[in-house]
Amino acid sequence: MQDDLTHTADAPSVVDLRSDTVTRPTEAMYARMRTAPLGDDGLDADPTACALEETAAAMLGKAAGLFVPSCTMGNLLAILAQVQRSEQILLEAQAHMLNTERGAATLTGAFLYGVAGTDGAMDLDRLEDALSPNASPLRTAMIALETSHNAAGGTVLPPAHMAAVANLARARGIPVHLDGARLFNAATHLGVAPADLAAHVDTVSLCLSKGLSAPVGAVLAGDGPVIAAARRLRKMIGGTQRQVGIMAAAGLEAITVMGARLAEDHDRARQLSEGLNALRPRLSATMPQTNIVQVDLGRTGRDSARWITDLDALGIRTRPLGGQRLRLVTHRHIAAADIDRAVAAFRTCLDGA
Amino acid sequence: MQDDLTHTADAPSVVDLRSDTVTRPTEAMYARMRTAPLGDDGLDADPTACALEETAAAMLGKAAGLFVPSCTMGNLLAILAQVQRSEQILLEAQAHMLNTERGAATLTGAFLYGVAGTDGAMDLDRLEDALSPNASPLRTAMIALETSHNAAGGTVLPPAHMAAVANLARARGIPVHLDGARLFNAATHLGVAPADLAAHVDTVSLCLSKGLSAPVGAVLAGDGPVIAAARRLRKMIGGTQRQVGIMAAAGLEAITVMGARLAEDHDRARQLSEGLNALRPRLSATMPQTNIVQVDLGRTGRDSARWITDLDALGIRTRPLGGQRLRLVTHRHIAAADIDRAVAAFRTCLDGA
Amino acid sequence: MQDDLTHTADAPSVVDLRSDTVTRPTEAMYARMRTAPLGDDGLDADPTACALEETAAAMLGKAAGLFVPSCTMGNLLAILAQVQRSEQILLEAQAHMLNTERGAATLTGAFLYGVAGTDGAMDLDRLEDALSPNASPLRTAMIALETSHNAAGGTVLPPAHMAAVANLARARGIPVHLDGARLFNAATHLGVAPADLAAHVDTVSLCLSKGLSAPVGAVLAGDGPVIAAARRLRKMIGGTQRQVGIMAAAGLEAITVMGARLAEDHDRARQLSEGLNALRPRLSATMPQTNIVQVDLGRTGRDSARWITDLDALGIRTRPLGGQRLRLVTHRHIAAADIDRAVAAFRTCLDGA
Amino acid sequence: MQDDLTHTADAPSVVDLRSDTVTRPTEAMYARMRTAPLGDDGLDADPTACALEETAAAMLGKAAGLFVPSCTMGNLLAILAQVQRSEQILLEAQAHMLNTERGAATLTGAFLYGVAGTDGAMDLDRLEDALSPNASPLRTAMIALETSHNAAGGTVLPPAHMAAVANLARARGIPVHLDGARLFNAATHLGVAPADLAAHVDTVSLCLSKGLSAPVGAVLAGDGPVIAAARRLRKMIGGTQRQVGIMAAAGLEAITVMGARLAEDHDRARQLSEGLNALRPRLSATMPQTNIVQVDLGRTGRDSARWITDLDALGIRTRPLGGQRLRLVTHRHIAAADIDRAVAAFRTCLDGA
Repeated sequence: MQDDLTHTADAPSVVDLRSDTVTRPTEAMYARMRTAPLGDDGLDADPTACALEETAAAMLGKAAGLFVPSCTMGNLLAILAQVQRSEQILLEAQAHMLNTERGAATLTGAFLYGVAGTDGAMDLDRLEDALSPNASPLRTAMIALETSHNAAGGTVLPPAHMAAVANLARARGIPVHLDGARLFNAATHLGVAPADLAAHVDTVSLCLSKGLSAPVGAVLAGDGPVIAAARRLRKMIGGTQRQVGIMAAAGLEAITVMGARLAEDHDRARQLSEGLNALRPRLSATMPQTNIVQVDLGRTGRDSARWITDLDALGIRTRPLGGQRLRLVTHRHIAAADIDRAVAAFRTCLDGA
Repeated sequence: MQDDLTHTADAPSVVDLRSDTVTRPTEAMYARMRTAPLGDDGLDADPTACALEETAAAMLGKAAGLFVPSCTMGNLLAILAQVQRSEQILLEAQAHMLNTERGAATLTGAFLYGVAGTDGAMDLDRLEDALSPNASPLRTAMIALETSHNAAGGTVLPPAHMAAVANLARARGIPVHLDGARLFNAATHLGVAPADLAAHVDTVSLCLSKGLSAPVGAVLAGDGPVIAAARRLRKMIGGTQRQVGIMAAAGLEAITVMGARLAEDHDRARQLSEGLNALRPRLSATMPQTNIVQVDLGRTGRDSARWITDLDALGIRTRPLGGQRLRLVTHRHIAAADIDRAVAAFRTCLDGA
Repeated sequence: MQDDLTHTADAPSVVDLRSDTVTRPTEAMYARMRTAPLGDDGLDADPTACALEETAAAMLGKAAGLFVPSCTMGNLLAILAQVQRSEQILLEAQAHMLNTERGAATLTGAFLYGVAGTDGAMDLDRLEDALSPNASPLRTAMIALETSHNAAGGTVLPPAHMAAVANLARARGIPVHLDGARLFNAATHLGVAPADLAAHVDTVSLCLSKGLSAPVGAVLAGDGPVIAAARRLRKMIGGTQRQVGIMAAAGLEAITVMGARLAEDHDRARQLSEGLNALRPRLSATMPQTNIVQVDLGRTGRDSARWITDLDALGIRTRPLGGQRLRLVTHRHIAAADIDRAVAAFRTCLDGA
Repeated sequence: MQDDLTHTADAPSVVDLRSDTVTRPTEAMYARMRTAPLGDDGLDADPTACALEETAAAMLGKAAGLFVPSCTMGNLLAILAQVQRSEQILLEAQAHMLNTERGAATLTGAFLYGVAGTDGAMDLDRLEDALSPNASPLRTAMIALETSHNAAGGTVLPPAHMAAVANLARARGIPVHLDGARLFNAATHLGVAPADLAAHVDTVSLCLSKGLSAPVGAVLAGDGPVIAAARRLRKMIGGTQRQVGIMAAAGLEAITVMGARLAEDHDRARQLSEGLNALRPRLSATMPQTNIVQVDLGRTGRDSARWITDLDALGIRTRPLGGQRLRLVTHRHIAAADIDRAVAAFRTCLDGA
């Protein structure tokens, strides 16, 4: 494992593949946190939060940005600011906003309708059906995309797909929101700028934690009026904080410096996938576009809970994806040697079965 | 002005009496932030957040605590965890939760009913009327108190009042929540421990910012099941953050060290009140129990907006309380000399009128 | 007691002063119900419902009307159609929409803010304060009036008050809704047409039951787009019915024929008030403008529950207004002789005490 | 067309296959409406409504019943009474409660999650997956069934399926609700009593309109506490009406007399299906279990909108099911000769193409 481990509570021998959310701040982030100019963001703005918001908005090609405690809140505010009670949101049936964040929607009065898709991309015919006037008694007030797509294994939406969805939406005057929890991973895979992807949508949330390694926070970006509304709503739900520039300073480091290293995570994920697929047919792994690998345990005779326990005993931490699969995520603290250790642990478990 | 001003964006010559929320972190807070053990609070807990939650809960005499981005979110989670859709909350008619945070309630389906009171304390007869079975078609599921009471001028609820409300509530099986945004100020005024006040209630939110000077955050405390529910709900609304121990570290410093100095803020507020009342009858000020002074401008012939502009020109920053009053708040960055300057500025404005 | 009692479940000897909602259909209503043209109001409209909606809208001076199961639903739909989540409604603090129908608001995400008033009329200064930009974090999206005002004792809003409220509202682009559960009583008292009162407001609900004696239903009237929205929302909450023309037929009789007799109810209420005030100072009654009399029992040494029991034993049915008052309502089934009986019963109870 | 057409607004030559909701009251219903004992259902109950509620509850094998304006409201009240904010409901992905009534859920804060199925029956493996603890952050508080199933073409859930769902639900303490808009059709098809089907569920709504021909209304049945809660909630949303016994009287006739004739509607539907399938392969029709026939227009070269226009010109009224199908529903006003006319019209259209 790499980098500044002074602050970790984990023993150094653990290879933590549970999520890229476990990443800790870099030394440069600590340095920026220590010296960031501060103000009262609930009163008349914090200068470092403003700097982050402006920088992030520029990188995403939007007019304005809003620093929020989490990407979940960024998505929630995008809904509150754009979708009224008893209006509906169309999104891919396995989208994080539907599967994991569905509770947020219950507070908004918005209806979430999942459109079946492939690799995280909604089937366009089904989407068009769902948009037809008689398909629902509720007005569709938002279409939401997600790239890279978590549940689909970190897959990246093809830009042509994003453009096609945007065309359907704009023809009907419907805003498109992008859950960009891992947008920089998607942009890295495609070799484009984040703004190139965000150009297809009206609002975008971007997580500063995960691969970018900031300790907390996310940014919601969009046009001026939507972000102004989101700013009021952020206060309403308790997401406005005071001298928040300390956290925003780490976020600034995250978006301006840390994006460049995501390709390493993707390399590690491919190394992991190849290593695991060498164990075929006993188990198989998805070939990742970004930093997420899904492992199929179906032929191993053991369920995911058992695998997690067994791997944990060998210092490899993982998470289940239902009963027959594991989800492995690479990040800044995972080096090539850690991948070797992880693959070896899988082999040991298989051989010991 | 006192203390570590390295990080301020304000010019040093400004006396900022707008709110105690403008307080900046202490050097000790920065030191703790730099070295705090970190984990992933959205995955399996952050050790420093846990330490803060345990420490705060103990200081409040509750079984469990939850670190939240703001006191507004603490109050919102107390509602979400304890009040169902179409149930009602009784609280003093000028309570912060009703007047300023009313938007939060609109997302919960809870109905807020204001009970008229004096100095922030609900009239007990009116409260009892509001609790009678025929008074409302909705079940009362919470009574909320606030001490010190912001809109009433930082007044402190008499412990006997808190006990009386608790008795009415407990006889009916209704939980009592305490909006303790400035609970430590109330305890300081009464010369009791925060837990002595929290003993009257079931849940309590405590702001770590304001007089305690942490950059962000609050703690919600209560019994185990309520806090466990609030923890799930915090994630739902996007209040769960990852390596949040950095912020929690500052909060630990706030509650264990900074409470002791609040008496100074109260002294400064009395100094301010006395100085302003020497200008009677042209203007008059409330005699504060804690750190908030309200100034009546009714006889000055100028409204609050004009006063704010005039005082600002003299380096004194204030906030309006409607059209005829100002609200002044003392805090760690306000020294005795700053109070002298502020009083002098008021005199200058009056004389120059 | 008068009129067609064939269908009553009550013994004829009972004088039912509990509410004008107990009124039963007239013979003419039954005749119209029997022959009303019917359609499917959930599919492509019911012709009798359309006739009622058009007739009611014309009588109220509005472009469109909507038949609804109850006045409560009419008020709820007015909110759903015009007030978004996290917006607020200002209304008199004792308004029926706030005190009795507050549960409806909890489903809409609208915040109800009660403005203190006199005789059912909001204090205009307080209303203006509540409308000031800094008074609330929520946008005011509706002001609601009620005339005659139930909790204030059937008092009628002065047209000048309605005009003043309308001016405040229109200057700010805020729609005014009128809870006209007893609008025809108010118009009767003032000697004006209902449309003269409704001219001050944007939407108005009108109860067909109560003094007008239809068995069920109400009409919501307003401009075309608002009523079209309310029609969609009515279906959403289950208020759309199929061959509803049967009920609408009774409603047509109610609004075109029955309004003319409300003056009799007002005469009976005055007769009742005078009879009871002859018993002063042991008890006292309000002098009614319309058909509601409030009786103060404070000096009788017995609470309202005891009075209700005692009067019931003498065949007089009444309802409490808190612990120390009764509410008596006159209607079509209450003749002058019934009032004499009721007054005599009060005297008997007083003398027997 | 059969029966009492005096009250229809339609020309007699029209064969209206749009829905069984177009059915008009029978003469016996009118007679019962004329003589029904009445009370004030918003005050202390209407005796005829009580009689309907008791009779319906008994027929459904439940302890208590509640008369409501529509089946949509019955379903909404079942949710409001049993599902709290931010809890979820599992139901078949094409269920009426999800597809058509989704707006109701947006007011309740309940999340609707559609489980894919066949012929209206949820896939049990998918249901079990959706019930697993990790499948959702929200607690599942209701499973809803629908029989006969509208969107699946009037299909009837096998009793064994209902039992299996009930077993899954009861093992987890989750109530099962049955949207029984056409429950009597399902019972007729199976040759069982409605109570035999309702025995699998905790609450059931039953539409009195549709095939049973009452002009308006539905009944929600369940145990005492749930229905008591639903009664309070009915008032809250404006579904409580006053002298509602007039409508309940028709409902009593509907459930005690009209169920016996539903087999005729099923016969007519089979006659229709057979007639249309004789036109294969140019078009094809589903073989109905109850009174709904879906017609596939895919090979006709014309879309549903065009077919509706063409059939309408021949006096046959139909409704679309998306762009390539029609939905035809038989009911009391459709005689065998009407079916012949309808089939002939289809043939004419095909031949004229």
